[in-house]
Amino acid sequence: MNFILKNIPERAQKPRTNGITLALDKGFSLLEAEQWLSVASEYIDVVKLGWGTAFVTPKLTEKIALYHSAGIPVYFGGTLFEAFVIRNQFEDYIKILHKYNMRHVEVSDGSITISHEEKLKYIERLSKEFTVLSEVGSKDINKVIAPYRWIEMMKAELEAGSWKVITEAREGGNAGIFRTTGEIREGLIEEILNSISSEKIIFEAPKKEQQVWFIKLLGSNVNLGNIAPNDVIPLETIRLGLRGDTFFEFLDR
Amino acid sequence: MNFILKNIPERAQKPRTNGITLALDKGFSLLEAEQWLSVASEYIDVVKLGWGTAFVTPKLTEKIALYHSAGIPVYFGGTLFEAFVIRNQFEDYIKILHKYNMRHVEVSDGSITISHEEKLKYIERLSKEFTVLSEVGSKDINKVIAPYRWIEMMKAELEAGSWKVITEAREGGNAGIFRTTGEIREGLIEEILNSISSEKIIFEAPKKEQQVWFIKLLGSNVNLGNIAPNDVIPLETIRLGLRGDTFFEFLDR
Amino acid sequence: MNFILKNIPERAQKPRTNGITLALDKGFSLLEAEQWLSVASEYIDVVKLGWGTAFVTPKLTEKIALYHSAGIPVYFGGTLFEAFVIRNQFEDYIKILHKYNMRHVEVSDGSITISHEEKLKYIERLSKEFTVLSEVGSKDINKVIAPYRWIEMMKAELEAGSWKVITEAREGGNAGIFRTTGEIREGLIEEILNSISSEKIIFEAPKKEQQVWFIKLLGSNVNLGNIAPNDVIPLETIRLGLRGDTFFEFLDR
Repeated sequence: MNFILKNIPERAQKPRTNGITLALDKGFSLLEAEQWLSVASEYIDVVKLGWGTAFVTPKLTEKIALYHSAGIPVYFGGTLFEAFVIRNQFEDYIKILHKYNMRHVEVSDGSITISHEEKLKYIERLSKEFTVLSEVGSKDINKVIAPYRWIEMMKAELEAGSWKVITEAREGGNAGIFRTTGEIREGLIEEILNSISSEKIIFEAPKKEQQVWFIKLLGSNVNLGNIAPNDVIPLETIRLGLRGDTFFEFLDR
Repeated sequence: MNFILKNIPERAQKPRTNGITLALDKGFSLLEAEQWLSVASEYIDVVKLGWGTAFVTPKLTEKIALYHSAGIPVYFGGTLFEAFVIRNQFEDYIKILHKYNMRHVEVSDGSITISHEEKLKYIERLSKEFTVLSEVGSKDINKVIAPYRWIEMMKAELEAGSWKVITEAREGGNAGIFRTTGEIREGLIEEILNSISSEKIIFEAPKKEQQVWFIKLLGSNVNLGNIAPNDVIPLETIRLGLRGDTFFEFLDR
Repeated sequence: MNFILKNIPERAQKPRTNGITLALDKGFSLLEAEQWLSVASEYIDVVKLGWGTAFVTPKLTEKIALYHSAGIPVYFGGTLFEAFVIRNQFEDYIKILHKYNMRHVEVSDGSITISHEEKLKYIERLSKEFTVLSEVGSKDINKVIAPYRWIEMMKAELEAGSWKVITEAREGGNAGIFRTTGEIREGLIEEILNSISSEKIIFEAPKKEQQVWFIKLLGSNVNLGNIAPNDVIPLETIRLGLRGDTFFEFLDR
């Protein structure tokens, strides 16, 4: 921190289990990634190479090595996992994870329809070798899942070996835990938090109002995902009460 | 491609006449353009220097040379053409095209009002020396053109020498073939496609839902324009069925 | 300018008092700032390090020096000023301004509630050493201030020593002089302009339609603020009538 200000909320330190910022790389060049890290590496806990972008991005090996050398885990978006699964190429996917030296992996069913038992088997299998982030919620805005079912699935995935469960929102912040308008399903969130520790959850929250909402509800050290690269610094200021939206949140008054 | 995945749709190879991605440079620095190319050059078919930005961007000669050296055609936005025409400086415009070593040029009437005969004369004149992209549709959201008239004009422009015709959408995706809400004029598109080969058309589609709509309608190798630089890689994943939106589009099931 | 075009409106030259573009740095790396300047330095009059981002951005001293070496004033967002004031650390803030060699400072009350007399004292105190930009209007979308009160406050702040007064809009363009929808409070603007010279005002206008509206009302050389980095070049084309939105604005016809 550049200045001394009183009553700044304490942020968890790296490696964080709380207060995680999971940021989205949608196709950075090496130099762009390097510049991003030069500013924000302290505030980035995990990088997701969005959906299938890793398939088409050049110099992928070098980029993954760059993030790793900054001490930042990186993983392929869940849609890539699903693209291999639906083609019966799951074993190929594992080979690719090895080839690219990945230590984290996402298991999701945002596009494919598989039984939850099958999903749990993928989590079990992968968690033997990798840190698994599993995602709950559909990308299909018409598939609304009941709160009790969210909770059942999240619990089962954590028991099967997931490090954290991610609540789906898409890059646009308009699916899963959000309505198509971007509005938050507040009742759903409250029910989930009643049963599962927020530390085990990463809430996808790509829009500023969504980030603000979670920080007001759960404090500076809430885990947030699908953060656009240029929003990592702004998000950090929201976590610290240094943007208008949370200005009074952490002041003793 | 970094991995081997089954049932990935085949993309046309460069130089493409189908499956073109026409991307928008709104004022990149040389290094920014270079970094962009380092990631996306395989997926960029043409670069448009948006509207009049070329007038105010420093090191223009160097930037054009950079795109050319990557084998990527570059042209000035149609608004610059119109700015010269309305000032009776068309001959000056041709001199500028020579000076900057341009090989492609856009002819449009999105702001100015000229007879279609006059527009066709510009196309004829310029197509003797340059590859002409001509644009149909007004930037004025209140000017709604009837489908039969779109078709007449597009056909006449192709006959006059246009390499491709572009359907207007603006950078915001809210004019021409789109309603002010960004919604697609589906009936209009269907009528156009009934009369003109999609290979001859570049559909401006700056928004993701618009890109998805065209890819679902016409397949991976539809020509799309006004793509923001950071959306070129994401668009490529949509073309390949590696983003949720088109995940099932190209699978044999 | 790269080409000779007739009837291009004359832009004020640097250092400008009219036609100012006040742009927003939300956490650029040094190289990103450098690249931005390489393209847009001629069109950037002042840089604001948005709200509290300066608190968390690494290499702050170097970045400020970089802007200064390009002859561009830079200042900390008003929220940072307010964060010091509400913690009774105003004297610390002055020390920080010295430490970072700042020559410009913003005085605002977008989040905090202080009497206008107190705000004027801050302006008086700081204007002895620094060029003061003071901001009028609340970030709270529910606090609507009557036009006569806007005028009273703006006049008093200019008399107290402000170089310019800024009309609040937030980064989103949805507060202060704008409705929550982003729509402009036209009546408010007209009343303000009836009493205060537009040269003394910087209108925050982050959205393109807002920029267009002010340029149509007040001409090319209106002072505009909260401009995103990538919008500086596009804004310059709007000022010059080289984008569709203002294409006919400056033509003698």
